[in-house]
Amino acid sequence: MAPIVDIHTHVYPPKYMDMLRSRTEVPYVRNFPDAPDSSRLIILPGEDDPSMPGTSRGRPIGSEYFDIKQKIAFMDQHKIDKSVISLANPWLDFLPADEAGQKAIEINDDVNEQCSLYPGRLYFFGTLPLSADTDTIVKEIERLSTLKYARGVILGTSGLGSGLDDPALDPVYAALSKYNQLIFLHPHYGLPNSVYGPRVGDYGHVLHLAMGFPLETTIAVTRMLLSGVWDRHTSLNVLLAHSGGTLPFLAGRIESCILHDGHLKAHGKTQNRRDVWDILKTNIYLDAVIYSEVGLNAAVEASGADRLLFGTDHPFFPPLEEDAKEWHSVNANYGAISKAFAGADEKAQGVLGGNAVRILRLEDDM
Amino acid sequence: MAPIVDIHTHVYPPKYMDMLRSRTEVPYVRNFPDAPDSSRLIILPGEDDPSMPGTSRGRPIGSEYFDIKQKIAFMDQHKIDKSVISLANPWLDFLPADEAGQKAIEINDDVNEQCSLYPGRLYFFGTLPLSADTDTIVKEIERLSTLKYARGVILGTSGLGSGLDDPALDPVYAALSKYNQLIFLHPHYGLPNSVYGPRVGDYGHVLHLAMGFPLETTIAVTRMLLSGVWDRHTSLNVLLAHSGGTLPFLAGRIESCILHDGHLKAHGKTQNRRDVWDILKTNIYLDAVIYSEVGLNAAVEASGADRLLFGTDHPFFPPLEEDAKEWHSVNANYGAISKAFAGADEKAQGVLGGNAVRILRLEDDM
Repeated sequence: MAPIVDIHTHVYPPKYMDMLRSRTEVPYVRNFPDAPDSSRLIILPGEDDPSMPGTSRGRPIGSEYFDIKQKIAFMDQHKIDKSVISLANPWLDFLPADEAGQKAIEINDDVNEQCSLYPGRLYFFGTLPLSADTDTIVKEIERLSTLKYARGVILGTSGLGSGLDDPALDPVYAALSKYNQLIFLHPHYGLPNSVYGPRVGDYGHVLHLAMGFPLETTIAVTRMLLSGVWDRHTSLNVLLAHSGGTLPFLAGRIESCILHDGHLKAHGKTQNRRDVWDILKTNIYLDAVIYSEVGLNAAVEASGADRLLFGTDHPFFPPLEEDAKEWHSVNANYGAISKAFAGADEKAQGVLGGNAVRILRLEDDM
Repeated sequence: MAPIVDIHTHVYPPKYMDMLRSRTEVPYVRNFPDAPDSSRLIILPGEDDPSMPGTSRGRPIGSEYFDIKQKIAFMDQHKIDKSVISLANPWLDFLPADEAGQKAIEINDDVNEQCSLYPGRLYFFGTLPLSADTDTIVKEIERLSTLKYARGVILGTSGLGSGLDDPALDPVYAALSKYNQLIFLHPHYGLPNSVYGPRVGDYGHVLHLAMGFPLETTIAVTRMLLSGVWDRHTSLNVLLAHSGGTLPFLAGRIESCILHDGHLKAHGKTQNRRDVWDILKTNIYLDAVIYSEVGLNAAVEASGADRLLFGTDHPFFPPLEEDAKEWHSVNANYGAISKAFAGADEKAQGVLGGNAVRILRLEDDM
């Protein structure tokens, strides 16, 4: 019986919380006078519009965001044996260049130490100082490879500031390949508010979370593909959040659009390239955070059941009722896996944890 | 043996071409001095940047866009028995309010007449004068229901100007429901260029077509859902282009985001509503223009094989080589259907044409 492993689960470690509390610009954490009992986390521009009451700004941030004991309790409650924790967005993207390197060292050490408190149960994806110079970033990748519980890095979609298709990222991708560190690619910025129309406020955060996040991921990974990242870095591995955004569903259309594109054709770029399906089955892993059997089946068909990894997105999507213990979101993902793999227990075990153990080398420190 | 029916196939009928040729603003058709042999169709703002050579502006528009004989020849070549043709984007969205009503009448009559030249082989989705007042729009819906070959309307995502979740569209949706006219929902505007990053020009039209189009559709239909269109108009039927954009894949996440949304919860909007899956299986039809078995399977699982309809997107995505007769895009969609329904011939026949005959009432005029 393989352990159950959660590879999509976030923390804001103590050093990061200190930083958020000391800031006055997005991102920051603050108690507003009209919401004195609850810290609010503001991570996106506009979420702190002064016209809004404090209780509507950003989201409440309780101890489940930073207390590692609560992570372990959540894991126990949901029979999760191991978690690969990662800093939640917005990571370090906003730091001045000269601070980012040192902050990344502090925060990664902080998370590594948290993992050491629960040996064999916690591992982590590190955070890179992307606003620093490339040398500093590469050095942190090298250093991460020496930290006992590090198993890769979490990355947003902005890269050095202009996206993951930036050729200036080549040394970063080369270092990640060299040290066999996987990228956990995760959205943060979503899409411009204008695309949701004038009634977006009526729908809470639904359009931003349900559309903006997955679409941001899909665009980012397609830009990587089109810019030839995987033609140059054939062993670079990327784990895509939310089952790839929408990549499994759109892969056929992407491939068709590439083949038919006049500009790419004129520049000889429709041929002699690794196609979407090849990348999906060789370099891409998908988490299983998709809340439906339909989406999960598409992910399996696109990448293979041996490349799919269970996740929860904890502490986001908490129980629906205030006094409920059950996490509906977690059960939705468990349920999708058990339906999709009914009668295929070995595959289900792989998705629930076996794949993560193999891919992320989690057996060493039991 | 059911006939093969193509429900996603576009024309610019003669009256519409005359209009495009007479215009000097987007959208328009023109021969540029440095591209004298080929008319260029400019349908999106920015596609006619004067710094670009004429041969790079918009796209060449040959007779396959407007000559109905070529549509029939294409159908014969690909064994398509019947086509439900529709005006290609941008339809009439750009017309002044006082011209739109009359233009819609002329263009719908024009298309109806083209269909009458090939009885039993051609039907059409009409075009609505959306910039006119609601009465004019509703009158055209009534009038379309009297045209022999009309079977619904094609609609972009902008509605009366602020999207398909606009309550002012209620009389339009009521009229479409009353006359049992289906909406063929089709993207046009895509996403703002900024979301593709600074290297978008290197990738031709791939990101716009492969990401922007499906994401525009998904956002539009989710806005309809969130605004309660289908709670108010329970028999309104919508056929979604490109297998729903990304709706089948994201449906689970959409439903989860609705259930967990604090704002919707506070307003009692997470309960007593028809959920995404109910709408997908009751009010939504999906075309099969998705170019992969993975996407097609997800569409089937989300809506059912009896709600999926074959399409080609002709005359877009023409043969890959200039002298080739084979349409790679058409064969990709045929291939996905035959793989997805291997051993389930009845379902395949339904998708290829049986469903369209039943849903769009195409048996009457053989």
